[in-house]
Amino acid sequence: MPANDMSAIVSLCKRRGFIFQSSDIYGGLKGVYDYGPLGVELKNNVKSSWWRHMVYQRDDVEGLDAAIIAHRKLFQYSGHEDGFHDPLVECKKCHARMRQDKMADPTKCDECGSTELTPPRTFNLLFPVKAGPVGDDGEHNAYLRGETCQHIFANFKNVMDSTGRRPPFGIAQIGKAYRNEIIARNFIFRMREFEQLELEYFVKPGTDEDWFNHWREQSKAWWVSLGLADDHVKEEELAADDLPHYAKRTIDMEYKFVHGFDEIESINNRTDYDLGNHTKGQDEFPIHAKVRENKDSNTKMAVQDIETKEWYIPYVVEASFGLDRAVMAVLTEAYTEETLENGDTRTVLKFKPHLAPIKAAVIPLAKNKPELVELAKKVKDDLQRLGLGRVMLEMSGNVGKAYRKHDEVGTPVCITVDFDSLEDGAVTLRDRDTMQQQRLPIASLPAKLLEIVNT
Amino acid sequence: MPANDMSAIVSLCKRRGFIFQSSDIYGGLKGVYDYGPLGVELKNNVKSSWWRHMVYQRDDVEGLDAAIIAHRKLFQYSGHEDGFHDPLVECKKCHARMRQDKMADPTKCDECGSTELTPPRTFNLLFPVKAGPVGDDGEHNAYLRGETCQHIFANFKNVMDSTGRRPPFGIAQIGKAYRNEIIARNFIFRMREFEQLELEYFVKPGTDEDWFNHWREQSKAWWVSLGLADDHVKEEELAADDLPHYAKRTIDMEYKFVHGFDEIESINNRTDYDLGNHTKGQDEFPIHAKVRENKDSNTKMAVQDIETKEWYIPYVVEASFGLDRAVMAVLTEAYTEETLENGDTRTVLKFKPHLAPIKAAVIPLAKNKPELVELAKKVKDDLQRLGLGRVMLEMSGNVGKAYRKHDEVGTPVCITVDFDSLEDGAVTLRDRDTMQQQRLPIASLPAKLLEIVNT
Repeated sequence: MPANDMSAIVSLCKRRGFIFQSSDIYGGLKGVYDYGPLGVELKNNVKSSWWRHMVYQRDDVEGLDAAIIAHRKLFQYSGHEDGFHDPLVECKKCHARMRQDKMADPTKCDECGSTELTPPRTFNLLFPVKAGPVGDDGEHNAYLRGETCQHIFANFKNVMDSTGRRPPFGIAQIGKAYRNEIIARNFIFRMREFEQLELEYFVKPGTDEDWFNHWREQSKAWWVSLGLADDHVKEEELAADDLPHYAKRTIDMEYKFVHGFDEIESINNRTDYDLGNHTKGQDEFPIHAKVRENKDSNTKMAVQDIETKEWYIPYVVEASFGLDRAVMAVLTEAYTEETLENGDTRTVLKFKPHLAPIKAAVIPLAKNKPELVELAKKVKDDLQRLGLGRVMLEMSGNVGKAYRKHDEVGTPVCITVDFDSLEDGAVTLRDRDTMQQQRLPIASLPAKLLEIVNT
Repeated sequence: MPANDMSAIVSLCKRRGFIFQSSDIYGGLKGVYDYGPLGVELKNNVKSSWWRHMVYQRDDVEGLDAAIIAHRKLFQYSGHEDGFHDPLVECKKCHARMRQDKMADPTKCDECGSTELTPPRTFNLLFPVKAGPVGDDGEHNAYLRGETCQHIFANFKNVMDSTGRRPPFGIAQIGKAYRNEIIARNFIFRMREFEQLELEYFVKPGTDEDWFNHWREQSKAWWVSLGLADDHVKEEELAADDLPHYAKRTIDMEYKFVHGFDEIESINNRTDYDLGNHTKGQDEFPIHAKVRENKDSNTKMAVQDIETKEWYIPYVVEASFGLDRAVMAVLTEAYTEETLENGDTRTVLKFKPHLAPIKAAVIPLAKNKPELVELAKKVKDDLQRLGLGRVMLEMSGNVGKAYRKHDEVGTPVCITVDFDSLEDGAVTLRDRDTMQQQRLPIASLPAKLLEIVNT
């Protein structure tokens, strides 16, 4: 039985060390979360999988890791300083602050029901910061980036010049972004600090629709590779009226969360809006999108067509994934409650092995027997050295309890070292999903674990 | 000849795509840098190496990945809000802002020589932010973290409770931190946005000095594993007067940069200062450090000794590494200019293979011969699948130029696919350091590359 109640997942995440409310010793910071010992491994495994698919396995994508603090002008010319806001109203009675377009009834306070509300004012979602010795009187000169892609656009020429790439090629980036949401909600679904996996692919105008379809397919393939069921991931094409200001076409990928189908990725045809806005010498190039005049940029964001010799501003096809949402989707999909033959309930996270935070747990049958512990450590070290991810020496000394724990955290196999192991050089390997146990020679474990994790 | 001039390294970093000035299309943001296509791989390889050493290869350390935005109280009780500042003076004539204790002559402006300076005022290094719908009138309720370790302390109980750990054990974290330096300098050495590798190890009071020495040894071993020469890394013990406010003892690890020996890591005996400051019920436990009264924390940061049944606040031994400084040290150490027999100069980054951004470059001899390109792609895909890091299909079509490029970016081996390869199934493998070439069967390449990268 998969999760039909998010609270079971949230509770498991805290209890087992996946995700904690941030700064919770001081009452917590809303919309901000910390990844615990298992969460950091799960998140890193999702990142690696994405990087492998988007950068390593292709021959046309370069990586980038730009700063989070961005020059103010970057988010002026992107359109965010003027346009990236929500309508905020405040209750005059209880001082609750609400996003007007999300209120149950926009004439009444969601908290206390009072009808005395302030008129809505625009609330910008960017976090302003002052970088360097700017005084209390001075204007802020920077923002925490509201999306990672603006740094990809800013580095377009740097990447072209240093790698010799020409369109079609892409730049991929993983990193934090910040949106000062009026209301954060749904666990790690809508946070104020979150992480993105963004791929911006630069193409010649006219080829953009084909590339858009290419990235739809690639994206879907990646989501399915995470173990999400095919019918739990669907495309939602945005109507013309709903398109973001930068897009000619948008398809959202949605996952079937407990709270309903909701966005996990947005695939956008951003046309030449971005490079056109950030380029120097806008008059010199044909720009199709409506852009604001830019007298500040020092860099021409144009490419010369080798055959026609004409200069053009590349179009951008974007695949923008939410990393925390990917983690939440993987957790939701993996969460399983099973009723065993004896009537007991077993909770299992059925992660694909390459995403599991712990690849294998090695359990000495008794923790106070040095020779068992020593052999278990040796088995652990040999498996750790494969470079597949974390392998854990499980010192609870209670095999049944260890199995239950590792089911709950999604460890694909448990390996128990017992007294016979000292004699016959074999151990018991127990499979998370089938609960089947088999006796295997220690020497065969590396090949076995490689097979489990790499398939 | 190693680098004796930092500008050669900075220039190579930009030209080849390791590190760019951030937001440079708008004139740049001082003290903030972006990692380019090769920089992101190098930095990620340093991170993986650290995580492997500090988490995976041990059995007493858990990982964490906490948020960057921190509750204001976290940095109040840490002592940063009151004490984390530098003396700022402003020139009344040219309005330059300077850090008084770093001025050439504190009575004269560094920029214009004027003696009309404002009196020094304290300038706090934390970046304040307002999280959530806090109005323009409201006080900031959060900071960008000034060090990552505070989140480790805040999560001490969360990690203990979810993993069953008890001291001695550690928590490791990699992530960004922010210090609003008055003057940023020395490339990526002193930045406003930077990244830390922090290990906080929790121990019983009385065992702290032994653990301090343990982490000195472990740290040094890790630095040397990055390829830094033993005599380029030295310890500097801080005198009692120079100790940070939280430390009973501090040893800085320093690396011999071009600008001189300078700090790359700080090993601190933080005593019970941190958990003592953040704990609820301070009166109930013996606290040795001088802490401020805390009525806000909701969590007791104490542990019961199983034998004596007494409760105590653990001491913290910290090993705090600068990730960007590690990258800069690795670049400095690897940078080599060699004079060849024919009198030409060759620039090589002699990275240890596990740190090299590109593990192998596969070069089809001619880029317009589909059968060569196809075979090269197959070779690349097979090597990529080993999971050792990025393998690159090098399509420049000029083998000599490709060798020169891959020397400069530190790729351990180049593999050239030529017309004979189509017949004999063999390729030419060229070693970065010796420049020796050998002919090898394609089938032997995976084992060869594994051997090169894993030793």
